[in-house]
Amino acid sequence: MNAERIPDIIIGRLPVYLRALQRLAVRGIQTTSSQELGEIVGISAAQIRKDISQFGEFGKQGTGYSIPFLVERLQDILKVDRVWDVIIVGMGDIGHALARYNGFTNRGFQITMVFDNDPKKIGQKVGDFEILDTATMAEKTKQNKVKIAMLTVPATAAQEMAEQLVKAGVKAILNYAPISLNVPRNVRVQYIDPVTHLQRMTYYLD
Amino acid sequence: MNAERIPDIIIGRLPVYLRALQRLAVRGIQTTSSQELGEIVGISAAQIRKDISQFGEFGKQGTGYSIPFLVERLQDILKVDRVWDVIIVGMGDIGHALARYNGFTNRGFQITMVFDNDPKKIGQKVGDFEILDTATMAEKTKQNKVKIAMLTVPATAAQEMAEQLVKAGVKAILNYAPISLNVPRNVRVQYIDPVTHLQRMTYYLD
Repeated sequence: MNAERIPDIIIGRLPVYLRALQRLAVRGIQTTSSQELGEIVGISAAQIRKDISQFGEFGKQGTGYSIPFLVERLQDILKVDRVWDVIIVGMGDIGHALARYNGFTNRGFQITMVFDNDPKKIGQKVGDFEILDTATMAEKTKQNKVKIAMLTVPATAAQEMAEQLVKAGVKAILNYAPISLNVPRNVRVQYIDPVTHLQRMTYYLD
Repeated sequence: MNAERIPDIIIGRLPVYLRALQRLAVRGIQTTSSQELGEIVGISAAQIRKDISQFGEFGKQGTGYSIPFLVERLQDILKVDRVWDVIIVGMGDIGHALARYNGFTNRGFQITMVFDNDPKKIGQKVGDFEILDTATMAEKTKQNKVKIAMLTVPATAAQEMAEQLVKAGVKAILNYAPISLNVPRNVRVQYIDPVTHLQRMTYYLD
């Protein structure tokens, strides 16, 4: 189970499986099959079996997967069997929505600080958080050993903020700004881009 | 080139290729290789070649892909060689951000209407849009033959809104609410879920 050996494309599907399994678990369902899971997530049963088998033997022929067991293993593999501190950089509409979002807990994440550079916003409260000055971001990020940031600043500010975050020790950036970030190879970036999702659907429309 | 034959998982990667290619084009770059594209999007060159070859012969051995040609073909395949009307349902933080987002144009989409059920919000302006009453949503959606909606209402309201949209003829829903929607098989749903993106990155963190 070497991190280098599993293609990132498979890693990218595991959170989708985990989400589906956790939703089944919430409904009190204890077992599932690759067929059922496939229906939910829109991925073929064969692909799901292949992906999951990369990490060991999980299902039994004929009895399917134990949901609690598979959830635990996926949480372990994805390292969300712990709680990661996450900061938000940019307190516009998206930053506000993320600061108030209650979908992080139980999935491995907690927001710990939120930042903006607008003097009118600094010091204001958003939910439980006081908006902090981005001028103090690097220092506070380093001090608290934060590894993950969500970047919700305008496109023009995103690259500079990303560089500050990387210098401060951030290793994973969830980027909402509509630009590609240049970061060192040891830093991960994921993009939230509604258009790619829309384009994936228009393929099927008439 | 039959829609039924290409796995959805490949379709899902095409918008990511398209975005990367359009960003290269903006920088004036005319050709690229599967290697270069792979570096940008984090997918192996072999996978990219395989995906793209599903739709015909594009690259030439040794000379790479013509970016303008590949952009045009991908736009054509994904049916974003036209402009689709999109409505926003739910004018909270995310709805506001989407209504003001300028990343839809040139990528195949335009927001045409925005809705909320809050009497305090109805009639207010967000950017160029007047917030309309969700009570009129079904009628206006049908009338204008809208096929695509972005759903940004609270989780508790999402299923009901989705059902209204489907009845009104919507065939593709981009769901920001943290629940799974039950929709007929001929309706596509995509989920925007920051947690799945975060979990894809924690796998690589220490």
